[in-house]
Amino acid sequence: MITSSTTSVIRDVVEQFVREELSAENAQIAGAVWSMLDAGGKELRPRMTLLAAMATSAAAPHDPTLASYMELIHVATLIHDDVVDNAGVRRGRVSTNNEHGNRFSVLAGDYLFSWVFKKVTLGYDNPVPTVLSSMLSEICNGEVRQLRAAGDLGLGRDQYFEIIGKKTAELFASCAQIGSIVALQRTTGLTGPKLSEYPTVRALRAYGWAFGTAFQVRDDLLDVVSNQEVLGKPAGSDLRERKVTLPLIIALERGDRAVLATARRAFATDLDGAATDGAVDELVERLRTSPAVEETKRVIATYAAQARAALCDLAPSPAVAELEALTHSLGEYPV
Amino acid sequence: MITSSTTSVIRDVVEQFVREELSAENAQIAGAVWSMLDAGGKELRPRMTLLAAMATSAAAPHDPTLASYMELIHVATLIHDDVVDNAGVRRGRVSTNNEHGNRFSVLAGDYLFSWVFKKVTLGYDNPVPTVLSSMLSEICNGEVRQLRAAGDLGLGRDQYFEIIGKKTAELFASCAQIGSIVALQRTTGLTGPKLSEYPTVRALRAYGWAFGTAFQVRDDLLDVVSNQEVLGKPAGSDLRERKVTLPLIIALERGDRAVLATARRAFATDLDGAATDGAVDELVERLRTSPAVEETKRVIATYAAQARAALCDLAPSPAVAELEALTHSLGEYPV
Repeated sequence: MITSSTTSVIRDVVEQFVREELSAENAQIAGAVWSMLDAGGKELRPRMTLLAAMATSAAAPHDPTLASYMELIHVATLIHDDVVDNAGVRRGRVSTNNEHGNRFSVLAGDYLFSWVFKKVTLGYDNPVPTVLSSMLSEICNGEVRQLRAAGDLGLGRDQYFEIIGKKTAELFASCAQIGSIVALQRTTGLTGPKLSEYPTVRALRAYGWAFGTAFQVRDDLLDVVSNQEVLGKPAGSDLRERKVTLPLIIALERGDRAVLATARRAFATDLDGAATDGAVDELVERLRTSPAVEETKRVIATYAAQARAALCDLAPSPAVAELEALTHSLGEYPV
Repeated sequence: MITSSTTSVIRDVVEQFVREELSAENAQIAGAVWSMLDAGGKELRPRMTLLAAMATSAAAPHDPTLASYMELIHVATLIHDDVVDNAGVRRGRVSTNNEHGNRFSVLAGDYLFSWVFKKVTLGYDNPVPTVLSSMLSEICNGEVRQLRAAGDLGLGRDQYFEIIGKKTAELFASCAQIGSIVALQRTTGLTGPKLSEYPTVRALRAYGWAFGTAFQVRDDLLDVVSNQEVLGKPAGSDLRERKVTLPLIIALERGDRAVLATARRAFATDLDGAATDGAVDELVERLRTSPAVEETKRVIATYAAQARAALCDLAPSPAVAELEALTHSLGEYPV
């Protein structure tokens, strides 16, 4: 029931951003935001924010703007994620006619972050602004760790889950947490950090965390088993960026020596990035046909079940049912 | 009186940041912050924050932590400013062994922004968080405009002052404004957006704005008249980045055809960045010996006087005297 309207609401908020903050001169930033908005996607983060509010209180006013801010923060992290290095990453290579590529992307992301923070500090009481800034700090921490772990074939599951917890699950967890907190604020008049300790808020945050973890593992798996048509980027894109994903970790745990040898070649540092492509394709193929695929699916199912379990303490409602339904989509692997 | 202690306070705050937020793993971010801290500099922004608080109320508790946050925001903008493009800018070229240069810098800056915002939303009431996020949004807006104006020899004074107002003066203005607001909050118990309308707050913000404008024009001038030993970077660095600075605008306004011809050559787009160096050096030399230097100094003096005038409405105090003394340093041009 939420799905149909969320997209247009996000567009409205982006349009407000453009109208209020960007002169005609800075339409370039607006363009960067538009192009990053996954308009055809499921807009999971704003949906989760809205559903968490409704699951907390049926009486809470509908607040799609807050939900849209969460999507815009996500967009800002994507814009920053797109800043490339001189080394390696071919897909992100800045075209020579885009003279200010990297610096512009940095500013566009900063601009968006600060705009959302301004709106949030103006419109929402604590702990909402604090949850948002803590979240952003956690996401950065996760991204830095991921960057440091690039190409590290010794990366263990614990480290992997710590990284994806910060870089991906934290945002989903915060969406659910903030949706719930604001619903409580608007229906009870309470404010302050203790709101995060409310059982409903904790349950919804736990739901978001488990959902986000499953979501990232699924994303890792799709990089191996899916294709460009579904993904919008070539299979093996994560591996090409030397990300150590869960299917790879599992295959290495199982002592798959062929995967190890191929991964070593695929991850060999190569400033041009081209010569390793054959090895990356071979690695994708080896993983796709390995038992690691089924084991990765079991991990996803475990976290999806954990997300559903977190909903058990909530009073039944259509919103809770929709949150539960979302977890089932985690078990679908379009190929 | 403030100078002697500010440096060590900033170091304490940075150490707290490192201790609380960065694991041993992420010491890399701490390193980026340290290296950007202008430890030998004048730390003008935190000093202005502290002095504005003292000028507002002698009874206000000394709050060097807030002042340090302002410096850390400045550091974060410098880190992001350092993200280079594949094209051009030689001084910023990422060394090939620094594989994650750009992306890492983006994350380090984001991390620092979010950490400071978290601390500020936890420790300071509105309108402080809103002033900070609005400020950051203005700075980004100025930076984007500057990027778009790069190499535009038709840039007029009005556009120039609009750009530097956003990218430089806004931060100084916000330092003075926030220092003053927090002093009022702590001595009167008032909170809320109306604090920004208090005459003392407005006067100090106006002071910071005029000071920051003079500061940036002086920075533009030093790029032409000073040298590497003083600047820590070669003379002409701004011009080499195709920034249209005030001495250049003034020379063009005066119809200096030799400057125009040299500037055209210096700003000719050159993806390698090397071939124009001769023209940049020639442009620096032409500007250094042009009447634009004296006229630029008069502009600086005008804004410095405007900053002093803004202080007239404040009750005399040692802090006000120190703020006034700061404006006199704007008239010094170490060469």
